[in-house]
Amino acid sequence: MKVLVLGAGQLARMMALEALPLNIDVEAFDVRSDQIIHPLSQQVLGEGLQQALREADVVTAEFEHIPLSVLEPCQQSGKFFPGSTAILAGGDRRREKALLQQAEVSTAAFCLVKNRADFDAAITSLGLPLVLKSALEGYDGKGQWRIKSPEQADDVWADIAQFLKQSSKKINQGIVAEQFIPFDYEVSLVGARANDGQVKWYPLTENHHVNGVLSVSLARAQHPLQAKAEQMFNAIAEQLNYVGVLAIEFFVVGDTLLVNEIAPRVHNSGHWTQQGSDSSQFANHIRAVCGLPLGETNLQRPTLMVNILGIDQLPENLLAIPELHLHWYGKTARPGRKMGHINLSAEAPAQLKQRFAQLIKLLPAEHFPELETMLPRIADI
Amino acid sequence: MKVLVLGAGQLARMMALEALPLNIDVEAFDVRSDQIIHPLSQQVLGEGLQQALREADVVTAEFEHIPLSVLEPCQQSGKFFPGSTAILAGGDRRREKALLQQAEVSTAAFCLVKNRADFDAAITSLGLPLVLKSALEGYDGKGQWRIKSPEQADDVWADIAQFLKQSSKKINQGIVAEQFIPFDYEVSLVGARANDGQVKWYPLTENHHVNGVLSVSLARAQHPLQAKAEQMFNAIAEQLNYVGVLAIEFFVVGDTLLVNEIAPRVHNSGHWTQQGSDSSQFANHIRAVCGLPLGETNLQRPTLMVNILGIDQLPENLLAIPELHLHWYGKTARPGRKMGHINLSAEAPAQLKQRFAQLIKLLPAEHFPELETMLPRIADI
Repeated sequence: MKVLVLGAGQLARMMALEALPLNIDVEAFDVRSDQIIHPLSQQVLGEGLQQALREADVVTAEFEHIPLSVLEPCQQSGKFFPGSTAILAGGDRRREKALLQQAEVSTAAFCLVKNRADFDAAITSLGLPLVLKSALEGYDGKGQWRIKSPEQADDVWADIAQFLKQSSKKINQGIVAEQFIPFDYEVSLVGARANDGQVKWYPLTENHHVNGVLSVSLARAQHPLQAKAEQMFNAIAEQLNYVGVLAIEFFVVGDTLLVNEIAPRVHNSGHWTQQGSDSSQFANHIRAVCGLPLGETNLQRPTLMVNILGIDQLPENLLAIPELHLHWYGKTARPGRKMGHINLSAEAPAQLKQRFAQLIKLLPAEHFPELETMLPRIADI
Repeated sequence: MKVLVLGAGQLARMMALEALPLNIDVEAFDVRSDQIIHPLSQQVLGEGLQQALREADVVTAEFEHIPLSVLEPCQQSGKFFPGSTAILAGGDRRREKALLQQAEVSTAAFCLVKNRADFDAAITSLGLPLVLKSALEGYDGKGQWRIKSPEQADDVWADIAQFLKQSSKKINQGIVAEQFIPFDYEVSLVGARANDGQVKWYPLTENHHVNGVLSVSLARAQHPLQAKAEQMFNAIAEQLNYVGVLAIEFFVVGDTLLVNEIAPRVHNSGHWTQQGSDSSQFANHIRAVCGLPLGETNLQRPTLMVNILGIDQLPENLLAIPELHLHWYGKTARPGRKMGHINLSAEAPAQLKQRFAQLIKLLPAEHFPELETMLPRIADI
């Protein structure tokens, strides 16, 4: 069996690592270069989407910012999962909000902004502070603005107007204005839906971001909001007749959950599943899109993940910490770039906390800020 | 970092799967074709040993039947682990017996046989029944004879003489005669030794063979002979100044262990470690030969392994059994060929037993004989 993945980054690579033992070959389509790549050897296997599409049994995606010119032939092939509707909803906040409304799940109050009049109306109707996000190509904190007081309106709008002018040359850009949510913390739910409608969810994961980029994810077994999150997952997945792994990010506010955004794919906050559960999100995505039964998703060991950003070397004695696993992506280092991640597990939360403290001491602090803020959270899992 | 593996089969492939996330590239040298292969993409990367040796940081092996013409330049490179002495001991039962004597570990009584006079002397000195094994190229039950009564001597020797005549055209073949051990069952110990002498052992594994080929391996936590096996492992590994994963097969006779044979490499009876322990034998072999700290080897979940021989398809609903993992090797099916394996885990032994019974029902019985003989053994683990 052959699976074609749109995108040739680390997510395709980690899918391929799980697919190979199932005798499923993964090829990756690099949307920018138009090349077909072997995600494990990096060998160029060919050029152009058409032939790869013909040869593939299944097509899927590792990211959602894919041009329509690529999505359309994939959708027409009849073998694209989770399909272009889901990918488009993940890549355009306007479609995403419409989907969340249809699924009747709670979100922050929001409105669409195309011009200054819309912007002023948003401030009036939603109140301040506001978060403004570009509709397209926004991820890892890119294309986001905040306004806290009316005096900032002119400056913030000047920034946004400049951004819109630049990006709308190429694409149908827009802005979504959202009421700022003073959330307690952020969680995500990663789950897999099979083509027969069977769904399995991993436990909720608590996520800590630094400068808009995920820094640490901590799997939380038996979180009191797990069932609520699963209901919301189902509402969204059923709207899309979804097949594959879907990730949903939530704000936790007291005992309520608000959907922040969705990712129609395997997700950085699910990387801990490689060590903490029987079947990782990558294995389950491959199983789902290939029509195979899903693997187990329960938390087997208390586990957390730390992202490695911008550097391609770490002290070798890190691996002396028990149950620590390095996952490098084989990429060339650039400042802020996701280069790999560390998974850390333990027998029990107290041991995980101790090992995490040990890890923090060994990591270069300048590349791993704020890790210690997650330490006290481990007591709760 | 780049590791060159001598041999391009499934063991190199499974090492490469574990090495990639460590940003360690594995290349495989196919001893027969003289080609350098990418073990995950099967791409031919080059030809000839010399250049690959120059480019590699570390050289290791996935099997022990390697010609001296290959072993010698590897040894001379100074980066070959576990090194040619260990590989030669694994590939020649005469050297293996000498090693075991030096290490002062118990084995069956044995003697070397070159001609009919030696053969008759072996019958007299060791008694019947006897097991006779070819010194070279013997594995998976190949090159083995048994003699139970004096009347069989002429027939058995005729077979052996014919075998010696054929194989000694190419190699310095010989025969080792061993006293037959009426063992209770067979176990193996897989362990890893780092270049600083640190050793970690997996739990003893009970092995069930059919026609001389491994069929099922069952990890046994807290086996009463674990400590004894570890002592014997250390005695052998220290003799060899061993670096890497080493496997030792034992006969269990009451409360004693007799070494049957050693394998200076990752071993089929350690495949369960991919699911049952934190760091698999493949990960730990890579860590050891690359000079990295070893990963944890304790049994995290009751786990067993079933070999898939001769077929390249199994019912898809196998994957619906919880905690069942398929590991295919991407090979073309031939009768009796090792095509893949199944790992099965559970929360507790009783659950593993139940899942194994479920698995046995789904497997085509003609390709999986005698599995049910292992069912009652699970109660003990």
